[in-house]
Amino acid sequence: MADVNGKVDLRSKFLDVYNVLKSDLLRDPAFEFSDDSRQWVERMLDYNVPGGKLNRGLSVIDSYRYLKEGKELTEEEIFLASALGWCIEWLQAYFLVLDDIMDNSHTRRGQPCWFRVPKVGMIAVNDGVLLRNHIPRILKNHFRSKPYYVDLVDLFNEVEFQTASGQMIDLITTIVGEKDLSKYSLSLHRRIVQYKTAYYSFYLPVACALLIAGENLENHVDVKNILIDMGIYFQVQDDYLDCFGEPEKIGKIGTDIEDFKCSWLVVKALELCSEDQKKILVEHYGKDNPEDVSKVKALYHELDLQSVFTEYENKSYEKLISEINSHPSKAVQDVLMSFLGKIYKRQK
Amino acid sequence: MADVNGKVDLRSKFLDVYNVLKSDLLRDPAFEFSDDSRQWVERMLDYNVPGGKLNRGLSVIDSYRYLKEGKELTEEEIFLASALGWCIEWLQAYFLVLDDIMDNSHTRRGQPCWFRVPKVGMIAVNDGVLLRNHIPRILKNHFRSKPYYVDLVDLFNEVEFQTASGQMIDLITTIVGEKDLSKYSLSLHRRIVQYKTAYYSFYLPVACALLIAGENLENHVDVKNILIDMGIYFQVQDDYLDCFGEPEKIGKIGTDIEDFKCSWLVVKALELCSEDQKKILVEHYGKDNPEDVSKVKALYHELDLQSVFTEYENKSYEKLISEINSHPSKAVQDVLMSFLGKIYKRQK
Repeated sequence: MADVNGKVDLRSKFLDVYNVLKSDLLRDPAFEFSDDSRQWVERMLDYNVPGGKLNRGLSVIDSYRYLKEGKELTEEEIFLASALGWCIEWLQAYFLVLDDIMDNSHTRRGQPCWFRVPKVGMIAVNDGVLLRNHIPRILKNHFRSKPYYVDLVDLFNEVEFQTASGQMIDLITTIVGEKDLSKYSLSLHRRIVQYKTAYYSFYLPVACALLIAGENLENHVDVKNILIDMGIYFQVQDDYLDCFGEPEKIGKIGTDIEDFKCSWLVVKALELCSEDQKKILVEHYGKDNPEDVSKVKALYHELDLQSVFTEYENKSYEKLISEINSHPSKAVQDVLMSFLGKIYKRQK
Repeated sequence: MADVNGKVDLRSKFLDVYNVLKSDLLRDPAFEFSDDSRQWVERMLDYNVPGGKLNRGLSVIDSYRYLKEGKELTEEEIFLASALGWCIEWLQAYFLVLDDIMDNSHTRRGQPCWFRVPKVGMIAVNDGVLLRNHIPRILKNHFRSKPYYVDLVDLFNEVEFQTASGQMIDLITTIVGEKDLSKYSLSLHRRIVQYKTAYYSFYLPVACALLIAGENLENHVDVKNILIDMGIYFQVQDDYLDCFGEPEKIGKIGTDIEDFKCSWLVVKALELCSEDQKKILVEHYGKDNPEDVSKVKALYHELDLQSVFTEYENKSYEKLISEINSHPSKAVQDVLMSFLGKIYKRQK
């Protein structure tokens, strides 16, 4: 039970920091709040920021703990690592609020998307912008006097730029009315995934922990590369589970095939299929109709993509393990192994 | 003719810098561009960034020139001031792209709004985000080694936060279906205008010039306050011209009355009207129907808002002049006078 209680405690401590950061933001001297506008921001934050799994945010504290090699963290260290963890959660909330508008989605984390809430509508675009603007406010409030302040600001800016660029290639290759499978390739898939997901989900938490620990990020390009590879592996799993996972476990019903997504599965299928099989893909991929979807799934089975994925998974794992083991620092190895442990052979 | 040629030269030099900054961004090593994505970004930039009057951008160079008290600027100084001017134009483009989506607008600067261009649609949300992300890239490329780099990054972040917060109060007080004039007051109007427009249009260009000139912004709170007052005066003129200006001169047909805007005119009308006149406002303000609009305009004439505005304009001018004259630095006085000269009694 200790571990369970420990985890509950960690999570609730992390949520306490959310409340501190929120109340700072709601009395930011750079703006004159009225009751109306303060209530709006508070409701918007509570709706969009803390409701996810918080994996990215919590992993900053985890990573920092490993970097300190088991030494007990001070209250200030826990607070700082948590604050940066929350900045990542804020970044994620910002992307999700805007992505849901762009994708015209309906639900997110089991509730209506923010722009679908009555009276919100397109105000959600500006709310997304506000979420993004809260990050530098949090950084300024709590890190302005730290020697790594500039690097922190630069880091968040660079990672946001990379994520938005990844989102751009995803959007422009999936432009409605231009369903063209010939553009889909493993290289395009890797670029979308690397920029749209891997930087902010895998590299950013560890980079934050490294900065608090006083490290220079320029000395850790190898760590970055390993984490990016892990992020790509993670997204390939996501693509796989979207089709082959159990909806009860992954918590949603996948629609990548209907949505004409540049998924790892369709890219692999294109790579492995005959000319005749390709015709099936071209005809049925990206149609919101159960019969078309079944045809595509049948082809995936025919091409035995489940085995292709298992082989990919095993090779990725071996490669990552060998890269991690060749890292000179035991503490960094522990950070990386803990990330890999959380995702290897995951079913959800 | 010298002056005309001088201005043309200034503007074309400024546009040259745009091309330098754009080509830097299109080969940013933090992202792997493909031809498709590079073309997309280039077209998006050309469509949205350089097509305005460029007043904000050009005023950074103007202001810096005054601060150097007529000393000839080096090529590097001109480049740096121009680059910061362009950052403000990029910021403006980002706000306009997103505002047009939120307001469901049709045209901007004489062409369709970006999100209405075929194949763009909601991708425009992410393009707005990209525009915003270009600012820290430009700052990092050209200012990373300057002693004022952190202050510059903080400045842009703070001003963006203030603008988004101003936009928020504007949006939530104008929520569709909740037309409630009782919320409208001079104080609300001032807050919307100050945060949504004055910081980025008036304070930001001068603050940029002060930073390049090696000044500490904390010593220039008085300059900030004067520029904010000037920005408020500018927006009151805008509200006035929306109703009483000549469409041929201001280049558009005003729709503040139809749009239920919290305009200075309606706020003044509410302040000055009788109970019976107030009923006219409540009944006819915010309706997209020429007869309703006429009733509101008739009331504005009855209340003699043109004279009320002239009095406001004269008083604001006198107050600004006296504030400017009491500033200890002649160079700063020149900067402020040049801003005021550009807007006093403007007809467009």
